[in-house]
Amino acid sequence: MNPHLTSPSGAPQVTAEVLTQALPYIQRFAGRTVVIKFGGVPVSDPDAARAIAGDVVLMHSVGIRPVIVHGGGPQIDDLMGRLGKEASFVEGRRVTDAETLDIVRMVLVGKVNRDITSAINASAPLAVGLSGEDAGLILAAPRDPALGYVGEVAAVNPGIVRNLQELGYIPVVSTIGADDAAQPYNINSDTVAGALAAALGAERLVVLTDVAGLLADVDVPESVLSEVTAGELAGIMARGGVVGGMIPKVEACLHAVRNGVGSAHLLDGTHPHVLLLELFTDTGVGTMIRPDPQEMDP
Amino acid sequence: MNPHLTSPSGAPQVTAEVLTQALPYIQRFAGRTVVIKFGGVPVSDPDAARAIAGDVVLMHSVGIRPVIVHGGGPQIDDLMGRLGKEASFVEGRRVTDAETLDIVRMVLVGKVNRDITSAINASAPLAVGLSGEDAGLILAAPRDPALGYVGEVAAVNPGIVRNLQELGYIPVVSTIGADDAAQPYNINSDTVAGALAAALGAERLVVLTDVAGLLADVDVPESVLSEVTAGELAGIMARGGVVGGMIPKVEACLHAVRNGVGSAHLLDGTHPHVLLLELFTDTGVGTMIRPDPQEMDP
Amino acid sequence: MNPHLTSPSGAPQVTAEVLTQALPYIQRFAGRTVVIKFGGVPVSDPDAARAIAGDVVLMHSVGIRPVIVHGGGPQIDDLMGRLGKEASFVEGRRVTDAETLDIVRMVLVGKVNRDITSAINASAPLAVGLSGEDAGLILAAPRDPALGYVGEVAAVNPGIVRNLQELGYIPVVSTIGADDAAQPYNINSDTVAGALAAALGAERLVVLTDVAGLLADVDVPESVLSEVTAGELAGIMARGGVVGGMIPKVEACLHAVRNGVGSAHLLDGTHPHVLLLELFTDTGVGTMIRPDPQEMDP
Amino acid sequence: MNPHLTSPSGAPQVTAEVLTQALPYIQRFAGRTVVIKFGGVPVSDPDAARAIAGDVVLMHSVGIRPVIVHGGGPQIDDLMGRLGKEASFVEGRRVTDAETLDIVRMVLVGKVNRDITSAINASAPLAVGLSGEDAGLILAAPRDPALGYVGEVAAVNPGIVRNLQELGYIPVVSTIGADDAAQPYNINSDTVAGALAAALGAERLVVLTDVAGLLADVDVPESVLSEVTAGELAGIMARGGVVGGMIPKVEACLHAVRNGVGSAHLLDGTHPHVLLLELFTDTGVGTMIRPDPQEMDP
Amino acid sequence: MNPHLTSPSGAPQVTAEVLTQALPYIQRFAGRTVVIKFGGVPVSDPDAARAIAGDVVLMHSVGIRPVIVHGGGPQIDDLMGRLGKEASFVEGRRVTDAETLDIVRMVLVGKVNRDITSAINASAPLAVGLSGEDAGLILAAPRDPALGYVGEVAAVNPGIVRNLQELGYIPVVSTIGADDAAQPYNINSDTVAGALAAALGAERLVVLTDVAGLLADVDVPESVLSEVTAGELAGIMARGGVVGGMIPKVEACLHAVRNGVGSAHLLDGTHPHVLLLELFTDTGVGTMIRPDPQEMDP
Amino acid sequence: MNPHLTSPSGAPQVTAEVLTQALPYIQRFAGRTVVIKFGGVPVSDPDAARAIAGDVVLMHSVGIRPVIVHGGGPQIDDLMGRLGKEASFVEGRRVTDAETLDIVRMVLVGKVNRDITSAINASAPLAVGLSGEDAGLILAAPRDPALGYVGEVAAVNPGIVRNLQELGYIPVVSTIGADDAAQPYNINSDTVAGALAAALGAERLVVLTDVAGLLADVDVPESVLSEVTAGELAGIMARGGVVGGMIPKVEACLHAVRNGVGSAHLLDGTHPHVLLLELFTDTGVGTMIRPDPQEMDP
Repeated sequence: MNPHLTSPSGAPQVTAEVLTQALPYIQRFAGRTVVIKFGGVPVSDPDAARAIAGDVVLMHSVGIRPVIVHGGGPQIDDLMGRLGKEASFVEGRRVTDAETLDIVRMVLVGKVNRDITSAINASAPLAVGLSGEDAGLILAAPRDPALGYVGEVAAVNPGIVRNLQELGYIPVVSTIGADDAAQPYNINSDTVAGALAAALGAERLVVLTDVAGLLADVDVPESVLSEVTAGELAGIMARGGVVGGMIPKVEACLHAVRNGVGSAHLLDGTHPHVLLLELFTDTGVGTMIRPDPQEMDP
Repeated sequence: MNPHLTSPSGAPQVTAEVLTQALPYIQRFAGRTVVIKFGGVPVSDPDAARAIAGDVVLMHSVGIRPVIVHGGGPQIDDLMGRLGKEASFVEGRRVTDAETLDIVRMVLVGKVNRDITSAINASAPLAVGLSGEDAGLILAAPRDPALGYVGEVAAVNPGIVRNLQELGYIPVVSTIGADDAAQPYNINSDTVAGALAAALGAERLVVLTDVAGLLADVDVPESVLSEVTAGELAGIMARGGVVGGMIPKVEACLHAVRNGVGSAHLLDGTHPHVLLLELFTDTGVGTMIRPDPQEMDP
Repeated sequence: MNPHLTSPSGAPQVTAEVLTQALPYIQRFAGRTVVIKFGGVPVSDPDAARAIAGDVVLMHSVGIRPVIVHGGGPQIDDLMGRLGKEASFVEGRRVTDAETLDIVRMVLVGKVNRDITSAINASAPLAVGLSGEDAGLILAAPRDPALGYVGEVAAVNPGIVRNLQELGYIPVVSTIGADDAAQPYNINSDTVAGALAAALGAERLVVLTDVAGLLADVDVPESVLSEVTAGELAGIMARGGVVGGMIPKVEACLHAVRNGVGSAHLLDGTHPHVLLLELFTDTGVGTMIRPDPQEMDP
Repeated sequence: MNPHLTSPSGAPQVTAEVLTQALPYIQRFAGRTVVIKFGGVPVSDPDAARAIAGDVVLMHSVGIRPVIVHGGGPQIDDLMGRLGKEASFVEGRRVTDAETLDIVRMVLVGKVNRDITSAINASAPLAVGLSGEDAGLILAAPRDPALGYVGEVAAVNPGIVRNLQELGYIPVVSTIGADDAAQPYNINSDTVAGALAAALGAERLVVLTDVAGLLADVDVPESVLSEVTAGELAGIMARGGVVGGMIPKVEACLHAVRNGVGSAHLLDGTHPHVLLLELFTDTGVGTMIRPDPQEMDP
Repeated sequence: MNPHLTSPSGAPQVTAEVLTQALPYIQRFAGRTVVIKFGGVPVSDPDAARAIAGDVVLMHSVGIRPVIVHGGGPQIDDLMGRLGKEASFVEGRRVTDAETLDIVRMVLVGKVNRDITSAINASAPLAVGLSGEDAGLILAAPRDPALGYVGEVAAVNPGIVRNLQELGYIPVVSTIGADDAAQPYNINSDTVAGALAAALGAERLVVLTDVAGLLADVDVPESVLSEVTAGELAGIMARGGVVGGMIPKVEACLHAVRNGVGSAHLLDGTHPHVLLLELFTDTGVGTMIRPDPQEMDP
Repeated sequence: MNPHLTSPSGAPQVTAEVLTQALPYIQRFAGRTVVIKFGGVPVSDPDAARAIAGDVVLMHSVGIRPVIVHGGGPQIDDLMGRLGKEASFVEGRRVTDAETLDIVRMVLVGKVNRDITSAINASAPLAVGLSGEDAGLILAAPRDPALGYVGEVAAVNPGIVRNLQELGYIPVVSTIGADDAAQPYNINSDTVAGALAAALGAERLVVLTDVAGLLADVDVPESVLSEVTAGELAGIMARGGVVGGMIPKVEACLHAVRNGVGSAHLLDGTHPHVLLLELFTDTGVGTMIRPDPQEMDP
């Protein structure tokens, strides 16, 4: 790759200098929780998934406590298609009857979660897959009768995630929740990621997407905002500057930084090692959402 | 149900007397691990699953540490059929190509495990679903190239199960294993149950089936053996007295009692409350396999 | 006993159903402290004592943390009589000179406490006898110079009881207290039970008597009140509706529920398994005293 | 008392020098268990009891872990006399019918134990009274049918004593044991002290008597042996050189030093501060019994 | 030394009585931290240092947690002289250039601290030498540019001292501090002692000097004040009644008692066993500074 | 430094790739102890010391447990010269009279140790300076009367080092030992490093020198051995192939790998980041000494 890493004399010295430059970042994040939301394209690309998993293991190795939250829309569409089941959406939410719920759960918990867990465990046997149904982790409430078993987050009970973190594991969470009677619900995975980051008092929420970040002008791909406060972002949303699938991601970031998370980040998950770039270098990648000063909204 | 439980005067007194009679059993099993293997018919019947889950929660409430291991052959067949995929078997083992492995994993981890976990959590949020892939739990090795991704148990690393037990959770384990490179394998669930019971030093292994127990004469349904030693059972097997799907169950029981498990039990999982009857009464139900005296095989 | 428990087919199934019905109660009381006051008739009847002890061990086995507090008036009278010592009472309190104090202490700590402890330990070696003098448990103050060494509770230091509970033991407490100079005092055992229940933050205080409960009309034995709030009960007392030995029991119950105890119960200790009926069934036995709504006295 | 302690100039300096000289002894015994057997005269003399209690609290304050074991023959005789009950002895053992057992237990647990506990708690609330019946501490077996409820030590289960020591309490043990059915037995208190010291791995067993020590010549009071090995002492016993009530004391000391206790001491409990002299000075008081070299009996 | 300690009969009894009289003091200080400031004459006299070390080990043996803070002016002067380096002072503070700082640090950390540590470890291997630079213990700020590397205490981070105390060690602290960039500073050792005592919530601060205490009249050596409140002492200072090297000592004592320390003591470190006299007898030695009533300054 | 690290596009990606390549090394050393011996030239060069300290902090940040052992010959010579004290050597060992011992101790503990500790604490307040005298760490015995206070290692009691490691600190050890009477001795620092590495069960011993490694031919600087077994190295020594100051270094390495240390390394401490190169790259730097196969010497 980089010629200097393979040149006989130069490479080791580069290693030493790079590690030395990473030291302040390592010290800063030691023992802190970083919640990483996967979804969309990165999950369906084995190489991308493997690369992200490698970065997650590295984070864990230098003392960070990563928690992964994932969705899997394309994979759900795929199985529904193979089973001859028509997907239908209301305002961007998948209408979820009992049969669809079964498919969603099989794909998320039995396929996507497993692929991520495997990608991590190929490097070190640290990952433990969880569903939001386990040990009361995500308490769900129905969102809208018209949507069937689509839920919202009524409460987060992060005990099982904290316990696994204390024991040194990397929890990987599928975003199925359950109500008090253990009826499962399909919940938007960005929403779960934001709520879980807040409940864990995470240092960072990182939402991996397939775009470079939030655009100041939705029509100009180069207008990526590198940094924005919660208040400013709320203003942009109010003016209609956030659209489509970016809406729940932005809402999750706002929820997180307004509930104690240090910062939230929208990053392009297809960019190699984007997690490491974000955590261990000064390079501004993607969009950082900061809490408002004094935690006050304007 | 029982008229005496609803009669105005008699019922409470019956409750008190029954609890009093159960006391010695409760004391005997306090803090002990009981591994329960589910599969076949019980899992596919929601009422049976719910009943077994209720019994498991009760066991947990009186201080027993249950661990559930499950399979799900009928459910796998069903999804394969819906996807137009032909199942093929070699000596009773399902030939498992990559696509079949994906289906098996989705069904076991994303459907059957979830249904059992939900049934328990409907009573108390104690269950945590696991795959044998999590945290290196079940190390798999390929069984036979002709079978594809069918594995056998190379090693059990029960750390994640013990950790969850210590924390008061009820682990529910899907029998997918993984090799060192995290490649998943489909493993017979009876075999996993026997190996996990041995690795945990369980007090009991309970294998729930849909028959009343092991027959002294395979042609005479009434000839259920109530008790047999490992040596006697090995003799019966050697003489061809165990057939079909009962073979891996019997092998799992033999492995368990020859590796430190107190006793193994083949019970009819469709019988109401069969777990409670076995644990909390003197009633002989099903077949008990005991270790050989002095742990010597004849 | 109950024919259904010994009938060949019905009994085990009754056991299973009864245990299943008890599950919600077991879950509700898991880890909670229940203070049980013994005294009077039950203690002097070996069979009753044994039955109560059996129920206490069962409570402990399903995760409840019982603490026993006992008196022993009849036994004290008996030894005083044998020693030719005349008992004298002022307003229902035994005048206690130094010699009487010695007798009270020998009977309570060396006889009644031991008999209860033995009855429990015959089932499991869990009971540890304590006097309120041990480790500063009950700090006493003299009640009235005319009564001699009769004390009241100046403070409760429940450390030794909590320590023994944490270690899994069942404390059995004789109601002798001591002042700062370690001078012992004879204290009413109902009073100690109420104060100890409050100091431990118990879930329940259960006072076992030889009557069916509190009467709405003291002249009508059938008029047992099944439930009453602290405020209502204080009103009944103020109107003279509580008399004799029931007065300190009612005062102890009021003290307990007004200081954080969930509820207090006056039960007939001669009724078989009355503790189990109270804790594990819906059957209303005896009288339940509840805290006032919003913990306000009327 | 000592004029030098009250002289205006000298006393504080004496204090400082004495403490300095005690330092090596304090360091040597830090964290070690010392079992002290009380009985006979010292217990029945309030001043002596108070003095011994003061020494025990001091030992505890400098880091030693004292455990007290007591008898109370004179006090038992006294109550039996007052109740008109004739004592009868077979070979020095009190014949113990059920009524006598009740009296013994009331006196030991309810009177003598309480007096010792009070004497300690007057200085600091550290003492907790125990009977050998508590938590299975002393498992008893009947000694001889002719003696009734006279027991010997079948096993010691020192868990409750260790637990109380860990928590910083001073256990005071009455020497009533119980069999598996919780039937109490009266056991010789020297025997219990020796068995408990061995079970606890005590550094020292100290048996307080009312004589100056073991005599080389039973007829010559001045012939106190200051030190003797287990083997030598066994020889003296075999030659009849130990008589009467000294026999069980010597047997207890031999049992202790032959089962891991560092040394056993026969001291005159009526001598002021004899415990402190023994532990904190070089002065040879009483008789020290040492283990045989290489723990071999000659 | 004292003839009574070596007389054949009297000495042991004196020991016992002295220990008994010390008991209330031992109980009072059990588990409490006492910060002892050494300096000046005592440190440079090996016998005095050894005697103080012996007293410190004794304090530790009876459960007190001593922390030693030391200076070493005479020793610094000595090495500077040998190196031909002129000492210069501004308002009593040593002007400290880089070379002087090196000398100060070598003498304090490498000589005086070591001598104290050795004196303690000769008795028991408990002492661990620390510099205020270790683990961020004393955060320093420059006091005055004219003084060079002379610092004041900006903050105390007592973690390393607390950790060593918990592990049973005796910390010995040299009063070098460091700023955020780890630049060392020479800090007045009385000041450090007062700040450390406050940060540790010490029970006592003891400042050993070579005078008998604080004088009511600086010209009358016999006018030692035995006790004074913080407010009274502040008044004396304001009136010029404290002079020279006593000023930082008095300021340290005032800082300590105004920030939670129980009392501060100015004692003559050349007086034999002055620490023991102060802690374990009623003898008033030196001057005790008490907090003001209600922690209010007049 | 390296242009690629500052180029706009390339540098962050290099960082990510370097970190990824370092991951297997980080995982391999997580939680392991590495003992690093400093001395000679590196210590006297502030830049070199700072660079080494930076590498040590980085090692600590990624989960390695570093322990530093140092000497300081040149600095001792310097102070002796300034004090007009002649150094004299016998067979390469410094003859150490009492005055020289004082100088050695001041320089090592009060100067060199402090400089290393400061260099680390400038990056993070993690370093704690220790002398081998602290808490009985290095028990010394005199080596040869002719050498005065020159000691050898009689025993290592690594408790204080382990305790500090557990608490997350980085111990920095000066190689002064002490005998049972706390008399200090000057001990060769290579010897101490080898003994401490063995006592800690270290994964690696790294000895930093000012040469590139061990030479196959002492006259050919290019003949650096990259790897050698203990047996081979012992053979080289026996043939006289190791000379001068390299002898104690080689002996320390042999002692370490023959007593459980994974490997020992002789590295050039003046080479930038040589510690990181050794630990985090495949680059062979310096000489690695391996244990003999099957821990047998040829």
